Amino acid sequence: MIRTIEWTDEGVVMIDQRLLPTQEIYNTYTTVEGVAEAIRSMVIRGAPAIGVATAMGLALGVKNLTSGEDLESEWQKICETIRVTRPTARNLFWAIERMDRVFRAHSGSLAQVQDALVREAQEMHGEDIEINRRIGRHGQRLLSQGSTVLTHCNAGALATAGYGTALGVIRAAVEAGKGIQVFADETRPFLQGARLTSWEMVRENIPCTLITDNMAGYFMQSGRIQAVVVGADRIAANGDIANKIGTYGVAVLAKEHGIPFYVAAPLSTIDLGTPTGAQIPIEQRDIAEITQMAGQDLAPDTVQVANPAFDVTPNRLVAGIITEEGVARAPYVESLAGLYRIASERSGN
Amino acid sequence: MIRTIEWTDEGVVMIDQRLLPTQEIYNTYTTVEGVAEAIRSMVIRGAPAIGVATAMGLALGVKNLTSGEDLESEWQKICETIRVTRPTARNLFWAIERMDRVFRAHSGSLAQVQDALVREAQEMHGEDIEINRRIGRHGQRLLSQGSTVLTHCNAGALATAGYGTALGVIRAAVEAGKGIQVFADETRPFLQGARLTSWEMVRENIPCTLITDNMAGYFMQSGRIQAVVVGADRIAANGDIANKIGTYGVAVLAKEHGIPFYVAAPLSTIDLGTPTGAQIPIEQRDIAEITQMAGQDLAPDTVQVANPAFDVTPNRLVAGIITEEGVARAPYVESLAGLYRIASERSGN
Repeated sequence: MIRTIEWTDEGVVMIDQRLLPTQEIYNTYTTVEGVAEAIRSMVIRGAPAIGVATAMGLALGVKNLTSGEDLESEWQKICETIRVTRPTARNLFWAIERMDRVFRAHSGSLAQVQDALVREAQEMHGEDIEINRRIGRHGQRLLSQGSTVLTHCNAGALATAGYGTALGVIRAAVEAGKGIQVFADETRPFLQGARLTSWEMVRENIPCTLITDNMAGYFMQSGRIQAVVVGADRIAANGDIANKIGTYGVAVLAKEHGIPFYVAAPLSTIDLGTPTGAQIPIEQRDIAEITQMAGQDLAPDTVQVANPAFDVTPNRLVAGIITEEGVARAPYVESLAGLYRIASERSGN
Repeated sequence: MIRTIEWTDEGVVMIDQRLLPTQEIYNTYTTVEGVAEAIRSMVIRGAPAIGVATAMGLALGVKNLTSGEDLESEWQKICETIRVTRPTARNLFWAIERMDRVFRAHSGSLAQVQDALVREAQEMHGEDIEINRRIGRHGQRLLSQGSTVLTHCNAGALATAGYGTALGVIRAAVEAGKGIQVFADETRPFLQGARLTSWEMVRENIPCTLITDNMAGYFMQSGRIQAVVVGADRIAANGDIANKIGTYGVAVLAKEHGIPFYVAAPLSTIDLGTPTGAQIPIEQRDIAEITQMAGQDLAPDTVQVANPAFDVTPNRLVAGIITEEGVARAPYVESLAGLYRIASERSGN
């Protein structure tokens, strides 16, 4: 069991994903500012995990208030502290909206609000694992016996409260006895595939071959890959997918080779308020992620560098979006809205 | 002027490309074994540069012989020492064949053979630069004023005796006043784009933006790239292209976006004896190139890793092959053979 993030009496505990796989260090955060910095610096990453961290960060922020303060204006500041950390992942904003509804529903005494927010954050943690297991059950049906699945970045236990979205689908297929093998793109510049996906797969003895991002075409061409499954940072209402930089290239290659390209994500990653991928903000990160490694310069320090952290895969390249309520197929405007309706009927809203 | 490789009285001098851009160190090799190890360990790389290094290595090997030895069997050993270093680059075998013809034509006295081989190696060095300038003149006509050109790996001065093939085309376009900008894929795992192409472009003030390999799709999608120009390690008779791993993915993306994908290479890289790309041997290199950097582990040490050094781009994705005798267009079986005829008429063979 990989413990990505946990609420404890001492604070919010996260495994420091920047140090994996060489060091397994757990950091404890006791302030909303600390959690915000952990999100910004990618101690924790992956849209669902960012969602849970956001909820716990907000709960921490309110827990640290004393009764003399103006609750409404402090709440706005606390939300803003997290809101500005990373622009692309939908779950960050989804978690703020959900926690804001809880805040509004319990504006009686400070202690009441504090309790309600902490309970909600913990509930979101447990829900996320359960949602991933449901995604896995729906998704594993799409994978044939003995197939080899390529994944990009890390949409695993470390990108969620546990189990994973894309890796949850793979885990569920393995649990179903399908003898799945994995190819993991290393995923430059942050190397989530080399450092995190490989680490998760090795721990569970799921056969995994690490490749550099630019090898995906070679292995598709040689017939080694039967399916692609990736996660998502934000899904537009029309099924366009924002995910880790390089996902779009993998999707184009999959189309070229007639390989199905699936996206696994909870409904909380789907943003019905964003009509298409063109409206999704793409984070530009520090160029040192590209030009330096282990304190060594990998490029002349005067070269220009671009570092977009995500790209958008158009819906026409997506064979299916695997959610906890089932697999959406094109046309996505209808199918995604339909899954939302099912979910809200289920929860009685 | 970048000095990739030179014949000197002290031996064969090469800039150590493994240490760029942080250190500019020149190694001197005095034996064929030393040159073979430099090729194997990628002190020098790039098909045309490997061709020149091969010729100089063979010349060194014979220069070190004394008259008591069996010249024919020593020559076979010397050739074998280089032949087994790297399997994909055509120019290595081309250079052995060319030097073998010189060896056969001068089998009188040892001193005569030694002189002839050294002269031939030096001539091949000078020829290579001249050939690159001719490639540049033909290729630059394909680039429009103000266009941005994506390149993969390093097909520059450092991959040749000087000037470069793909970067030679870019240099010639810049010299023609076309205001060209460059996007350089970093090219994992060896980072030839980050370390070598960036370094060459920065030295000459050619605007260059470094990106990770998985960003090429993002920048094509956003309309930033007008052409792709890459080098080649071996070109089959039908125009299939073996080049640095990831080239195939770039070619598929270029096709998806309607961007012309050009290959720049001397005729010595074209192997009319290899009918299609399927017959080109693909080198598999040490996995430590992927799992380690600057002494740091980038992945769990128990994960499987694949490291094919090249891939094959099928001829249907190639808009043109730019050689010193002109630009070949599909169908390549005819056009490449035609360029060979022109070259052999020119040289009077």
